[in-house]
Amino acid sequence: MNEKRHKETFEKISDEKRGRILQAATKEFAEKGFSAANINVIAKNAGISIGSMYNYFASKEDLFLTVFDQGYKLLEKALVEVSVLEGDIFDKFESLIRVAQKSSRQYRELTQIYLDITSEGLTYLQQRLSRNFESITAKYYRDMINKAKNDGLVDPSIDEFVFSFCLDNLIVLLQFSYASEYFKERMKIFAGEDSIENDEKMVKGIMHFIRGALAPRK
Amino acid sequence: MNEKRHKETFEKISDEKRGRILQAATKEFAEKGFSAANINVIAKNAGISIGSMYNYFASKEDLFLTVFDQGYKLLEKALVEVSVLEGDIFDKFESLIRVAQKSSRQYRELTQIYLDITSEGLTYLQQRLSRNFESITAKYYRDMINKAKNDGLVDPSIDEFVFSFCLDNLIVLLQFSYASEYFKERMKIFAGEDSIENDEKMVKGIMHFIRGALAPRK
Repeated sequence: MNEKRHKETFEKISDEKRGRILQAATKEFAEKGFSAANINVIAKNAGISIGSMYNYFASKEDLFLTVFDQGYKLLEKALVEVSVLEGDIFDKFESLIRVAQKSSRQYRELTQIYLDITSEGLTYLQQRLSRNFESITAKYYRDMINKAKNDGLVDPSIDEFVFSFCLDNLIVLLQFSYASEYFKERMKIFAGEDSIENDEKMVKGIMHFIRGALAPRK
Repeated sequence: MNEKRHKETFEKISDEKRGRILQAATKEFAEKGFSAANINVIAKNAGISIGSMYNYFASKEDLFLTVFDQGYKLLEKALVEVSVLEGDIFDKFESLIRVAQKSSRQYRELTQIYLDITSEGLTYLQQRLSRNFESITAKYYRDMINKAKNDGLVDPSIDEFVFSFCLDNLIVLLQFSYASEYFKERMKIFAGEDSIENDEKMVKGIMHFIRGALAPRK
């Protein structure tokens, strides 16, 4: 289980007020990154005093981790939705790509926060993150690959560990490309100016790539 | 051409002093990220006064961009070295993977800085970056794919734009995995505990993935 991020007082306020604080925090952390984000600005934008803020959170770090946990739950929910879908490994990957396209726009700020936290300067914060999500995703990929091997759908000599890493790399950088200005520009440079709007082109191209990578070899 | 990042005075000091300043700056930016990095700490670690520092650079931002340009040149050099190698598209990708493994360790701090600058909070800085490197890489990939199509080595229906994006995603996240604590943990979760040390396993697995993705289809 995660350690506690907030003080008990934060559970006793109204849902509306809690939502207001988390929304203001999400916006500030996404826009400026953890290091440059200002907890005074967050309190002001949430319409509470800085004194109240410190009644709910011991530090900017605790507030940040609370926001991160929130995003984490949404990601987990999205993965569960895909995992229960019908279909073979290729149908599921196509769904994963579509979920990545949709969720990185819908939860743009949370994706930006995820990208920010990967930076080396925040190593001390990473130690307080749950990484369960990645273990669950990795196992989900491996199980899918192994099942597809048994069904004769993919090359039997595939290393399901390295392949899971490759597959997730394609999904993660796609997510970043819709949510971060830097990676958006990069995707346009590589995949073409229309790649940001033309979702079907990206689904088709990436699935073509993945189908070949997994397919039984000649 | 890039705009000027440093003042002319910086060109007039000794190579040794210039190297000392850039080294101290690289370390501080890599460890803490741009936002949290402190130009006073950099001056102190380089053994110069903060007054001298501002004689060479107008701002922390200019110093950062000077460091970035330096790393950029090293990346360009590495790519040029691969591009002149003999061999087909698969030989070249294998070389690219090995270069990624080597250079992200050798230039660990520069790779950390590259990761840091992709974060959304630094969008205003990104506008001052040269993105030529990505255009050159993208074109290099596309040309390789098109040549391989003509030679009958790869599937003729490949979209060389989306495929270049996919291929570069595999290389970029591999680089991050050797240089950033966050992505190192992630690679271990997906590709196995030994993936960080077992370079040949990663080369073999990723090349297996790429060969399949590009190969003419059944």
